Amino acid sequence: MTDQDLEMIAARAAEAAPLWAAVPPRRRAHALVAAADALLAAESELVATAEEETGLSDARLSGELKRTAVQLKLFAEVVVDGSYLDVRIDDADPNFVLGVRPDVRRYRVPVGPVLNFAASNFPFAFSVAGGDTAAALAAGCPVIVKAHSGHPRLSLMTADVVSRALESAGAPRGTLQVISGQQAGVDMLKDPRIKAGSFTGSIRIGRMLADIAAARPTPIPFYGELGSVNPVFVTPAALEENAEGILDGFVSSVAGSAGQLCTKPGFLFAPAGASFAEGIATRAERVPEHRLLNPGITSGYQSRRDAVLNTPGVTVLAEGSLRVDGEGQGWATPTIVSVPVEVLKEQRDALLDESFGPLSIIVEYDDPAKLASIADELFEGNLTGTVHAARGENSAAIRALVAWLTHSTGRVLFGGWPTGVAVTPAMQHGGPWPSTTNDSSTSVGTAAIARFTRPVAFQNAPGELLPEPLRDDNPWSVPQHRTPAGESQSWGSLE
Amino acid sequence: MTDQDLEMIAARAAEAAPLWAAVPPRRRAHALVAAADALLAAESELVATAEEETGLSDARLSGELKRTAVQLKLFAEVVVDGSYLDVRIDDADPNFVLGVRPDVRRYRVPVGPVLNFAASNFPFAFSVAGGDTAAALAAGCPVIVKAHSGHPRLSLMTADVVSRALESAGAPRGTLQVISGQQAGVDMLKDPRIKAGSFTGSIRIGRMLADIAAARPTPIPFYGELGSVNPVFVTPAALEENAEGILDGFVSSVAGSAGQLCTKPGFLFAPAGASFAEGIATRAERVPEHRLLNPGITSGYQSRRDAVLNTPGVTVLAEGSLRVDGEGQGWATPTIVSVPVEVLKEQRDALLDESFGPLSIIVEYDDPAKLASIADELFEGNLTGTVHAARGENSAAIRALVAWLTHSTGRVLFGGWPTGVAVTPAMQHGGPWPSTTNDSSTSVGTAAIARFTRPVAFQNAPGELLPEPLRDDNPWSVPQHRTPAGESQSWGSLE
Repeated sequence: MTDQDLEMIAARAAEAAPLWAAVPPRRRAHALVAAADALLAAESELVATAEEETGLSDARLSGELKRTAVQLKLFAEVVVDGSYLDVRIDDADPNFVLGVRPDVRRYRVPVGPVLNFAASNFPFAFSVAGGDTAAALAAGCPVIVKAHSGHPRLSLMTADVVSRALESAGAPRGTLQVISGQQAGVDMLKDPRIKAGSFTGSIRIGRMLADIAAARPTPIPFYGELGSVNPVFVTPAALEENAEGILDGFVSSVAGSAGQLCTKPGFLFAPAGASFAEGIATRAERVPEHRLLNPGITSGYQSRRDAVLNTPGVTVLAEGSLRVDGEGQGWATPTIVSVPVEVLKEQRDALLDESFGPLSIIVEYDDPAKLASIADELFEGNLTGTVHAARGENSAAIRALVAWLTHSTGRVLFGGWPTGVAVTPAMQHGGPWPSTTNDSSTSVGTAAIARFTRPVAFQNAPGELLPEPLRDDNPWSVPQHRTPAGESQSWGSLE
Repeated sequence: MTDQDLEMIAARAAEAAPLWAAVPPRRRAHALVAAADALLAAESELVATAEEETGLSDARLSGELKRTAVQLKLFAEVVVDGSYLDVRIDDADPNFVLGVRPDVRRYRVPVGPVLNFAASNFPFAFSVAGGDTAAALAAGCPVIVKAHSGHPRLSLMTADVVSRALESAGAPRGTLQVISGQQAGVDMLKDPRIKAGSFTGSIRIGRMLADIAAARPTPIPFYGELGSVNPVFVTPAALEENAEGILDGFVSSVAGSAGQLCTKPGFLFAPAGASFAEGIATRAERVPEHRLLNPGITSGYQSRRDAVLNTPGVTVLAEGSLRVDGEGQGWATPTIVSVPVEVLKEQRDALLDESFGPLSIIVEYDDPAKLASIADELFEGNLTGTVHAARGENSAAIRALVAWLTHSTGRVLFGGWPTGVAVTPAMQHGGPWPSTTNDSSTSVGTAAIARFTRPVAFQNAPGELLPEPLRDDNPWSVPQHRTPAGESQSWGSLE
């Protein structure tokens, strides 16, 4: 893209910003629903292109497209509901404990144009019309998506479908636009018209972009989702209760989408002495070869897999395969190894990194009481952490582990597997560094809308100059949290 | 402070973190109230020391101490109320539109130890026991305050009073600690045990610290409040309606605390041709000399004042005075000048910076319809912006100005003056860069608690392992936002 292209795109986003922000909630919601319906209407074409460009399966891609459409519709509900505006109204209070209190009313406004860097591994759900785009559009922000090079045609098709639908439903021109090329992404991130950035991808690139965002003459918030190894901890009692179910679930979770998921369990802690070898091997062998997303991911996976397989002390349970064609494109089956926890500690440099592909490491531990401190010694922040305990198991060891997980991840699971992130109001997808650049928010679920808004207060404003959500007649019927006069007299009495 | 001192302080804060986070809300609230009461009990000693170290008046300091105590009590209410936990519960939903939905429960947990850089100009309210400290303690985070060199004895006294009160009320050792020295602050900001930073001060220092926080191996959020010139816009009709009241309020707001307030109105836009000269001069002359906080602020104010007075095209309405003693300590009376808007545009490099002291610039404009575009051309982000309009005035020009203010500030005032920030649930103190490093939150008012929390979700957790706020029996009686099963079927229908 030329500098002129980028200039035109940034200018259009900036022009669209006040117009899109001013579209009333019901109309904005209808535009999101129209975009969702347009995606579903174009399903066959979009999924076929996605399949070709990414090697992901038809079933997976159809499901992902549906999820992406549902996500837009869910955000339409959020827009109409209006809770996200966090409306607070302080009534004027002549008897306020610190002197006369003015009438103060606060809500959240859209930040302005957002730049969203798409991921390779979810060509719908974390790409042009994915979660961050839906959240930003819902907030009232125009979006520029830096398309991922792994699915360039799909990106343009999706942008075309969605932007047409939005504009037909009354959104201004420039509400959703796409750019491509790494340099274009970096240049756009530096543009003063961009007010927030979001990203899903590697630690290396995410860190580089976060640093650029922070170093701008006017710094902006940057929400990057980077790397995560999502440890799973299985207690002896859980294994006794349900070894077959755990093995089934583990291998499925590692193998699904060829392990190219940010929540893939990279480490499973199991009691030493459990005989997994056969159960793992049998299950892994049943998994058919799956294409990796692109040559870049193939070569990254190849290095990680070689490093793991060549580490002294590693026992191979399922060697799996990685076949690479003349153009560098890979096909893989699951590779699953085991190591004693002491080896993992000694070989942490070789073993602890995320393997983006169908590889996982079973870590054999001796003492469940030490799991929390072992985890603390080994891991930084993660998106998720999972405990498999027996029914009713509630030991000090489990409690210590849950405390560590609460401190070190964004989502703590009990049973089940971290892959497959529900799109709901309570979901949290984001954890301490390096799983994200900023763990104050989420990239999945409705709470994500907060990323793209900022608060503004109005003091003693006449009714006719107040924004709709702050008016006493509340024309949008949004939740208003009101603090009546007189309350301050009792503060501190804690009645 | 030695490296060993800093190491011990960081270690204590890290040890205190899980303990303070685990203190149940009512006990945490009681500890905050105890701290507030202890401050009030020590008033005479604290205020006398503050007066000596800062030169601020007894009345101002007593009021500020009361405000600081009330702020702690208000946060005690916030802790008990529990809305800030943002509890969201998704009921498990077998009929969820994207397949079986798990039980997901999300709330906000404390981030861990917070480093708070105190300001010079509010030795109580933005210092050791000030707003950021209160918000972080309320959130359940231990706080290390980097004391301001402008009131070192007061800082230690305050820390002593407050930490004793907290610990007597059951807070762990290390819940509130103080460090001093610039290098100590920088070193502590780099310590991996520190999980968030806050700051109130200059653009230069705030930017430096924000850059350090962003460049850490593990970046952390940094909430800096930097510079703001708080423009005020007076319409011709407002002036006609209430010229005397506006002049009174303006001079008081500029002169209060010798203009050393982050919300001091630095520019007042008034219709050209209004004859202010006499009204301003008379009022300014009545203001007694006031000490500036310290020699550093004196020399900064001296340069700004000289630059403004020596700029061609500036008319002096009240020259005021700045007397500097042999030790560099200054005493000042208000300096108020006027310039035509065209001169301000031409001389922006000399005139547009914040003058931290009792100086303000009246800007004469010709056409009210152009105010919004003039403001947009001149100003970056500000903490506040104020409109003085006549009763019922609701022109396109006013609306454009309000739109610009909403976009460019954190608080829009109608009538009144931006100094004197109410401590309330709806207050917003924080606006676009450079008024803050991060305009997603506030440093005054109860919403500030969000700075020091991050979300965590629990998926399919057994009741006995859920944190109290997420349990069905809700032992802390916090607001729980529940999403029942079945709702997803209607998403997008926007009924």
